[in-house]
Amino acid sequence: MTLQALVEKKVKEARAAARPLARLGSDVKNRALRLMAERLETGKDRLEEANLKDLSRARDRGLSEAMIDRLRLNDARIGAMATGLREVAELPDPVGEVMRMWKRPNNLQIGKVRVPIGVIGIIYESRPNVTADAASLCLKAGNAVVLRGGSEAIHSNGAIAHILAEAAQEAGVPEGALQFIDQTDRDAVMHLLKMDRHVDLIIPRGGEGLIRTVCENSTIPVIKHDKGVCHTYIDRDADEQMAVRIAMNAKCQRPGVCNAMETLLIHEAAAETLLPELGRRLVTAGVQIRGCPKTRKLIAESVDATETDWHTEYNDLILNVRVVASLLEAMAHINQYGSQHSEAIVTRDYERARQFLAEVDASAVYVNASTRFTDGYEFGFGAEIGISTNRLHARGPMGLEELTSYKFIILGDGQIRE
Amino acid sequence: MTLQALVEKKVKEARAAARPLARLGSDVKNRALRLMAERLETGKDRLEEANLKDLSRARDRGLSEAMIDRLRLNDARIGAMATGLREVAELPDPVGEVMRMWKRPNNLQIGKVRVPIGVIGIIYESRPNVTADAASLCLKAGNAVVLRGGSEAIHSNGAIAHILAEAAQEAGVPEGALQFIDQTDRDAVMHLLKMDRHVDLIIPRGGEGLIRTVCENSTIPVIKHDKGVCHTYIDRDADEQMAVRIAMNAKCQRPGVCNAMETLLIHEAAAETLLPELGRRLVTAGVQIRGCPKTRKLIAESVDATETDWHTEYNDLILNVRVVASLLEAMAHINQYGSQHSEAIVTRDYERARQFLAEVDASAVYVNASTRFTDGYEFGFGAEIGISTNRLHARGPMGLEELTSYKFIILGDGQIRE
Repeated sequence: MTLQALVEKKVKEARAAARPLARLGSDVKNRALRLMAERLETGKDRLEEANLKDLSRARDRGLSEAMIDRLRLNDARIGAMATGLREVAELPDPVGEVMRMWKRPNNLQIGKVRVPIGVIGIIYESRPNVTADAASLCLKAGNAVVLRGGSEAIHSNGAIAHILAEAAQEAGVPEGALQFIDQTDRDAVMHLLKMDRHVDLIIPRGGEGLIRTVCENSTIPVIKHDKGVCHTYIDRDADEQMAVRIAMNAKCQRPGVCNAMETLLIHEAAAETLLPELGRRLVTAGVQIRGCPKTRKLIAESVDATETDWHTEYNDLILNVRVVASLLEAMAHINQYGSQHSEAIVTRDYERARQFLAEVDASAVYVNASTRFTDGYEFGFGAEIGISTNRLHARGPMGLEELTSYKFIILGDGQIRE
Repeated sequence: MTLQALVEKKVKEARAAARPLARLGSDVKNRALRLMAERLETGKDRLEEANLKDLSRARDRGLSEAMIDRLRLNDARIGAMATGLREVAELPDPVGEVMRMWKRPNNLQIGKVRVPIGVIGIIYESRPNVTADAASLCLKAGNAVVLRGGSEAIHSNGAIAHILAEAAQEAGVPEGALQFIDQTDRDAVMHLLKMDRHVDLIIPRGGEGLIRTVCENSTIPVIKHDKGVCHTYIDRDADEQMAVRIAMNAKCQRPGVCNAMETLLIHEAAAETLLPELGRRLVTAGVQIRGCPKTRKLIAESVDATETDWHTEYNDLILNVRVVASLLEAMAHINQYGSQHSEAIVTRDYERARQFLAEVDASAVYVNASTRFTDGYEFGFGAEIGISTNRLHARGPMGLEELTSYKFIILGDGQIRE
């Protein structure tokens, strides 16, 4: 069988499973999720054996210790996957929810009802836990899923997927609902991206290269989880302690993620008193500062920021700092350099808070809080498949609801159109 | 300037207008819509002059009288466009609506707020009224719009767009918010479809050929308005009079549209008493019937239906009829041949009604009503940009809400992430 035929076979099996899966009761889906969790735990030895193959291959290929650590499956990580599955089982089932129901003058009753999307392809890199996360969320939302993990974790991902698919089927999930593409050939992804007759949505999770490849080659709708160049703007009237606390948190609490701050903007009236102290604390926390000319004068340890820096998502302990003359200048900077992900203002001023909320175009706009809260769990969705940087269908943190579509049901008593 | 540069110039002007337009108050937008209506009425002579050019060109090219009639602009049609604009002005503004607002345990208040999508490209054929319809809905939802009408109506469309853009700007809409591509070269569309950096959504309105071209070539998300192969299933326990009334309406009230019935399915227990009478009425109404072997015996005037027929959207007074042995067989037929648009059951049975609603996968699923109601106005949306056959972002009738995206606003008192 050709590679294309192999991929198509799996995709078609997922398609065939999607319809019965869409009608499955929550009880069956939840039972399946709990059995999947149990089987991951009891299949620990098998998982660790598969994982060893990936680890030894990673060492042979000279991957960094940090990369190797991301691949590692141990008791704690297997336990975390199982816990994740059980948490998804506890979440409300979005499928069948009547989002709205209304009556027309002719007595037709119209309801908008959540239904699954159908077949979702997830293309991801590195960490094997994505296999369990993505599979559980797609299943709970009634979708068949085609998983395609990175080659570095191919054995671990394959073993996880195999255990999950087996348990799901045993619990009554239609056979074929959970597919795993174990061909590491890059062309397998290319073939998958063209199968728009069978796959309804592609979600890429990974670095910029992966996302670009997917967007450029997919004939299937893609929901991107792209970069975050996030700003925090400290206004002239900000509470100084609050401003420092929020800025430190947004930069340092977990610098490697998309909702961390990359650029601090500060009003010139606040800069002189606040920036030297804030600079010291950032530098003490290991942050390298790249500043505008005014910043350079106020923070001795800073270096010059280049034009490229303002555009850059560092995902690291590096921060751009720019002193601005007004809220308008801050918003103009954000509009020019931001990636419409998460943007915050720290202020005491009611009017400027409202203006920032209204005029900044980003998936999450904050007043007096850290941008680090852009997250499905922090928003209260109970789960997260990712953070969409699209404007259509889903924007920002995506939970179970964002993995659904809807249909209209219309209840009549013989109505016809005049 | 090259064709590509010309198109890009317009698209960029729309992009630049999108941000201030997104913040425009409803009062300005509504004033603009009313002024646009007024100017269409007072610009009647100019419109009819432009229209004459299209009509004479259409005659030279030997277009059918029906096609020529669709292109014609007269007092009534100009009046209808103006009325449409005024109706859109009366509709509630979706932008800024807080769809949901909730509080997290850490006291963060999170709101999901409707915002415009940004820049929308509309690619359409034939009827000039689409120019006014599409422009008004996009504007009301705060979007800049790039219009590209068919070459047959290029002068009429251009004149309408010019009047509308002028009036909008006079009323305070940012310059450039309404763009019209007057280059009839097909390549203009191809260029537009690749400008994903500036355009957020493409909506094609027209025949199958246009939709296929757009889907195959666009790097911008597309919301399709594709074909409708709609079924009505008459169950064994249906009210006979109701069944006849609904079937006649679904087929004959306006056969040329996507929500008209193309195939009638009827339970064998109902066929013998109902089909001869229904057949007579359909034939009297001018409907040609293509039937399964059982239908052939019950309706003398019918001819054999081919496999292709079951797949076909006739948009005409032609109907496929098939006798089935059960609800399951009817649903299997719908799943195999339907286009997931609008599907109806006529029944008195509670359980089968519920099963049909739950198991038929279509954008609109009816019990005891005509499929002809799948329509933004009939659903109560107050407007319609089209009927989406996508599963993502918008499915079924699309009104103003479906022309929006959303963002999250987060109100804090200094919260940071632990």
